[in-house]
Amino acid sequence: KENFEANCFWPFSSGSGGNPKYMATPITRNVESLAMDKNNYRARMEDFIMQLQADICTAIAEVDGKPFVADRWERESGGGGVSCVLQEGNVFEKAGVNVSVVHGTLPPAAVREMRARGHKLSDNDPLPFFAAGISSVMHPRNPHAPTVHFNYRYFEVQDLNNKENPTTWWFGGGCDLTPSYLYEEDAVHFHQTLKDACDKHDASYYPRFKKECDKYFFIKHRGEARGVGGIFFDDQDDRPREQIFEFIQSCGRSFNRSYIPILKKRKDMPFTEAEKAWQQLRRGRYVEFNLVYDRGTKFGLYTPNARIESILISLPLTARWQYMHEPKAGSREAELLQVLKHPRDWVP
Amino acid sequence: KENFEANCFWPFSSGSGGNPKYMATPITRNVESLAMDKNNYRARMEDFIMQLQADICTAIAEVDGKPFVADRWERESGGGGVSCVLQEGNVFEKAGVNVSVVHGTLPPAAVREMRARGHKLSDNDPLPFFAAGISSVMHPRNPHAPTVHFNYRYFEVQDLNNKENPTTWWFGGGCDLTPSYLYEEDAVHFHQTLKDACDKHDASYYPRFKKECDKYFFIKHRGEARGVGGIFFDDQDDRPREQIFEFIQSCGRSFNRSYIPILKKRKDMPFTEAEKAWQQLRRGRYVEFNLVYDRGTKFGLYTPNARIESILISLPLTARWQYMHEPKAGSREAELLQVLKHPRDWVP
Repeated sequence: KENFEANCFWPFSSGSGGNPKYMATPITRNVESLAMDKNNYRARMEDFIMQLQADICTAIAEVDGKPFVADRWERESGGGGVSCVLQEGNVFEKAGVNVSVVHGTLPPAAVREMRARGHKLSDNDPLPFFAAGISSVMHPRNPHAPTVHFNYRYFEVQDLNNKENPTTWWFGGGCDLTPSYLYEEDAVHFHQTLKDACDKHDASYYPRFKKECDKYFFIKHRGEARGVGGIFFDDQDDRPREQIFEFIQSCGRSFNRSYIPILKKRKDMPFTEAEKAWQQLRRGRYVEFNLVYDRGTKFGLYTPNARIESILISLPLTARWQYMHEPKAGSREAELLQVLKHPRDWVP
Repeated sequence: KENFEANCFWPFSSGSGGNPKYMATPITRNVESLAMDKNNYRARMEDFIMQLQADICTAIAEVDGKPFVADRWERESGGGGVSCVLQEGNVFEKAGVNVSVVHGTLPPAAVREMRARGHKLSDNDPLPFFAAGISSVMHPRNPHAPTVHFNYRYFEVQDLNNKENPTTWWFGGGCDLTPSYLYEEDAVHFHQTLKDACDKHDASYYPRFKKECDKYFFIKHRGEARGVGGIFFDDQDDRPREQIFEFIQSCGRSFNRSYIPILKKRKDMPFTEAEKAWQQLRRGRYVEFNLVYDRGTKFGLYTPNARIESILISLPLTARWQYMHEPKAGSREAELLQVLKHPRDWVP
């Protein structure tokens, strides 16, 4: 059903400065030239996320010492993607960076759900759609180094008669940090970097999207946040497309700055077996959130012929569930739970 | 919120023959005397599942060499349960046997769902309900020894004006086996034992409930069954209550016969690290099924103030997700996948 074109061990083509421009051939083979047209947001978004994938994989592989493996795949019903994975590396248990660029026809349930969220969609079904996104989860080995996640996406619902000018489009995304042990300075650095990226575009973005993040990445049945948060937003369509696209680019390009300094500081810290076991329990909570609540994961799992291995790249290599585990009062583990149960503001 | 009365390391009271009758005080403190009334199915079911829990925990602890720990808990909104866990034993990574006996008022969403399934419910809401069930998952250490699950439950929807004679009641349940390596003789023994228990009551039960089981324990996004199946049924109310209750008892009491001989045969088999890693990947699939599809788990996770640790007892101690893992053609691992993708009939 899928057409794999594995680009094992190193990116496909090189851009300027010796850095690879893309990790594999883009889904739209002539995307570079199409992206020259300022009004073609589909091509510009694909070009942007393909470049971002290469920038991030290059920077992460440099820290790890092991390269990413890139799988290029095609979707029978339209589009495809590039999944980059670094598994059992020196620094990472598992790190994945996915790009997908897909198009097709919206199922009626998706149309209802989008209308409920306030999008105005034409009554001329079937409605064609286009979606391009990048998403990533990275799980380091060292229990003092946090797991990180980000996702940026662009969505269009088109009219059968006028595919070039979608009446409805929006951007969504976010980035959040999930430590097993709390280092306040790390949380502050991470949030400050995201805030700086937001503030360049709208001073109201960071405070709103920080709150949305705490709300979204919440494991209801445990009564605790997944981690120390970050930013989260969806359905952004309240100003000219160019402005929101610029904001999305600022967010995506801030990732390496937000995460890599933390990673470098923590990756070689000494740790005990008990600390590793605690990290594995926290990995279990990560699995609970992703399989029970995460909209993207659920949407993917319920989509016929979705590429399951790319969707579940987000799951950790290993996880643990221990009946009635409770950290000792006053321990570093209890300190983390306190913060997860009572999300804090990290930057003024 | 909950009131724990941990009965650590050995059952609470002893019945005849030196076997413990219950693992802890029943939820309904005078259940033994109430159960003498043949028409009190609530008390009879509670007494039955409490005894079954003790019989099974005793037999499993004997094989493991480590006893179960029993937690008795109370539910603020009505009822409670007894959770028995054997964690990091000699034979088992994790084995849990839960009893819960709860009552309260049905939320409107549950009423709609039950009506959609064909149950006739009074319009006089709020509708009081009663539910008593036993459920268990056991994950052995040895990759050649299969994971097993069972669940038997009784449900009543009552009328506010006549709680003693519920107009609507039903039984549900099932039992299924999840090996990491296929041993045909084990699958045959397991199914034959369940078939024998079914055949005593209705020759149509086993073939119907075997098919239901293959249908229910199916990981849709992977296109594979969770394991080699067993039996599964719900909403059983098509004959006198006494007859169905007898059937439920036959099923429950057949558990030790269906599983323990397999466990004894496999628990000390030599195994390699690669076999252990394959078992861990299969554990990951188990987590996917339980968190994404299992009705009982989802119902529990979305229930406010549910006892999450009892619901998630079913998750393995450890699990693994590896990107794009695929067993070699012709391997023992590929043999299992074949059976999971094409469920077989195990007994004539």
